[in-house]
Amino acid sequence: MSAPVRPGHTVPADDRAFVAAVDAALAAFLRGEVENLAAISPDGRHLVDAIASLSRGGKRMRATLCYWGHAAVDTPATVDIVQAGVALELFQTAALIHDDIIDRSDTRRSMPSVHRRFEALHAEHGWALDGTHFGTSAAVLTGDLCLSFSEQVFGSLGAAAASGTRARLVFDQMRMQVLTGQYLDVLEEVAGPSREPAEAVARARTISSYKSARYSVERPLVLGAALAGAEADLIDALSATGLPLGEAFQLRDDVLGVFGDPALTGKPAGDDLREGKRTVLIGFALQQAPADEAAWLSAQLGRPDLDSATIERLRTILIDSGALRRTEQLIEDLHRRAVTAIGLLPAPVPVRAALTELAGRAVSRQA
Amino acid sequence: MSAPVRPGHTVPADDRAFVAAVDAALAAFLRGEVENLAAISPDGRHLVDAIASLSRGGKRMRATLCYWGHAAVDTPATVDIVQAGVALELFQTAALIHDDIIDRSDTRRSMPSVHRRFEALHAEHGWALDGTHFGTSAAVLTGDLCLSFSEQVFGSLGAAAASGTRARLVFDQMRMQVLTGQYLDVLEEVAGPSREPAEAVARARTISSYKSARYSVERPLVLGAALAGAEADLIDALSATGLPLGEAFQLRDDVLGVFGDPALTGKPAGDDLREGKRTVLIGFALQQAPADEAAWLSAQLGRPDLDSATIERLRTILIDSGALRRTEQLIEDLHRRAVTAIGLLPAPVPVRAALTELAGRAVSRQA
Repeated sequence: MSAPVRPGHTVPADDRAFVAAVDAALAAFLRGEVENLAAISPDGRHLVDAIASLSRGGKRMRATLCYWGHAAVDTPATVDIVQAGVALELFQTAALIHDDIIDRSDTRRSMPSVHRRFEALHAEHGWALDGTHFGTSAAVLTGDLCLSFSEQVFGSLGAAAASGTRARLVFDQMRMQVLTGQYLDVLEEVAGPSREPAEAVARARTISSYKSARYSVERPLVLGAALAGAEADLIDALSATGLPLGEAFQLRDDVLGVFGDPALTGKPAGDDLREGKRTVLIGFALQQAPADEAAWLSAQLGRPDLDSATIERLRTILIDSGALRRTEQLIEDLHRRAVTAIGLLPAPVPVRAALTELAGRAVSRQA
Repeated sequence: MSAPVRPGHTVPADDRAFVAAVDAALAAFLRGEVENLAAISPDGRHLVDAIASLSRGGKRMRATLCYWGHAAVDTPATVDIVQAGVALELFQTAALIHDDIIDRSDTRRSMPSVHRRFEALHAEHGWALDGTHFGTSAAVLTGDLCLSFSEQVFGSLGAAAASGTRARLVFDQMRMQVLTGQYLDVLEEVAGPSREPAEAVARARTISSYKSARYSVERPLVLGAALAGAEADLIDALSATGLPLGEAFQLRDDVLGVFGDPALTGKPAGDDLREGKRTVLIGFALQQAPADEAAWLSAQLGRPDLDSATIERLRTILIDSGALRRTEQLIEDLHRRAVTAIGLLPAPVPVRAALTELAGRAVSRQA
């Protein structure tokens, strides 16, 4: 069922060399920027140091998808795909810095989140006034700087990413879509309780589609292809692959956020419940649980003081209402759709193998 | 003493038509983006509505300086200078949204600041959980979206702003410099009390130079010229004009932040003292006041509960120590340097007239 690929079109079997090149290029870019900021003041480097430290821990999923999207194109246009990966990873770093302020997260990638890092700097030096507010302020600015860096690197791609190209449009849309999706997510936390429960799954799927499926999977894949000068057919085929794959990936995240093993996920048990995330999993429970249980569940979400007994009761509702089963079924459906779309992709074997592997992880990963 | 200008090089006598065109183009751009976000969800428009509302009130100082920088070039390259103005104003709107989170400002341009606007939306609908945190989260995301918009519009300038051009470099530097300057500013609020008082003025001038003089005046002026394809001589001459002019402008702001008439500035009396801004004016007092008064002054800065009697005592120290007089002298010196530089500008009369007028306002404005 696979579409034809030109026999001479070969790509490396894996992305390890690419990931290593992204790591090196990202580090080199940030070393240059440390110089620029330190030239203003020795303290200027605090900002770039925070970015460098956080960005080192990334798995480079978005960069890698951009690489495979690029590799899917038979005769790719000349573009520095490593720099495209760096631009995506810098954007992701910026998003994480601001996300951790929004989610009040203390840690990220097993280190203090950036606002906590600056708060610790404040405490360490015994500085004056409110260290927590200093931490938030510094993290807002660090995230903004990192957004600028992302754009700076993306702009350096030249003609392939110039104004009016498909790649530029994809990049601009990606930013707009993820920021809108994140807003809808925080809005749902506060507005969800008073909105129509029958629509809870539909609302959660919109959020998941924009803040995750498109941003983390579909747009990076399409961006790589667009930078390589792909035809519309291939772009559409990659999009049809990335959307179900990305949604399955996020739904797995949602399940792990409630049922995951803290020893494997690195996050406290039931973390998503304390944050009040109204995911697809929660949406199914709100729609399917008995009314009194649904109301009780809704009232617990977002309470930072949820104890383990309450988390256990919430889990029981998610299981007994069939919400967990429905979510797992949806993951399987989406996985099947992704695998079918991968089969139809007119792309070399390593590209399809990498996407198949990623789709498999959406179903089976535990962290 | 003025440098030669080609006789045929004429420009409009004022910038009113340009400002009207920027207002219209900015509104049109945001109308288009409302559609894009509303297509994701009707709630998506909250973000663009907040940007549109805030951006309507701007004086367009940065756009206007970009216009005059462009007009200084004898045979300008083809570029849509109105769109360049829109990009600058969108960046400024984003900076204000995040700045108001950092400074905990309730109002901006006589309206609620963006985080307060979202907090009010939360209260109005009686939504769940913490409305203040929702306001901050939504404002972080709105500022990020506005940063992306700024870049999107700047990118649309095409070849004149493409990667590797001087204009692109100026724009990238501008963002990096203002974000670093803002960080040094919040750092000085907390670290200043424990740092060498003898260096307080030097530190304050670095902050003022990067977060204000360059960002608000020098970079926009140079950007306009760079977009028009200016030679290095003209760029240098505009830079030599913009730096003293911009610093004088900021020092006047600092004086008004402590001694301004609330009826004219629209800000509460002594607002900068409550925020704990360690400006050049404060720096002179820390260096020149008797040690006990300087220590007392330092300890009051940043206390949100400063009463009017304490503010009056702080003002007296600023006057008696000679700090106000030194700051006014510095404004005059900088004004003189700016006027001399304007005289040497090889630019048409309206350009020099506009810059002379702006320099005059740095000395004499009351709001």
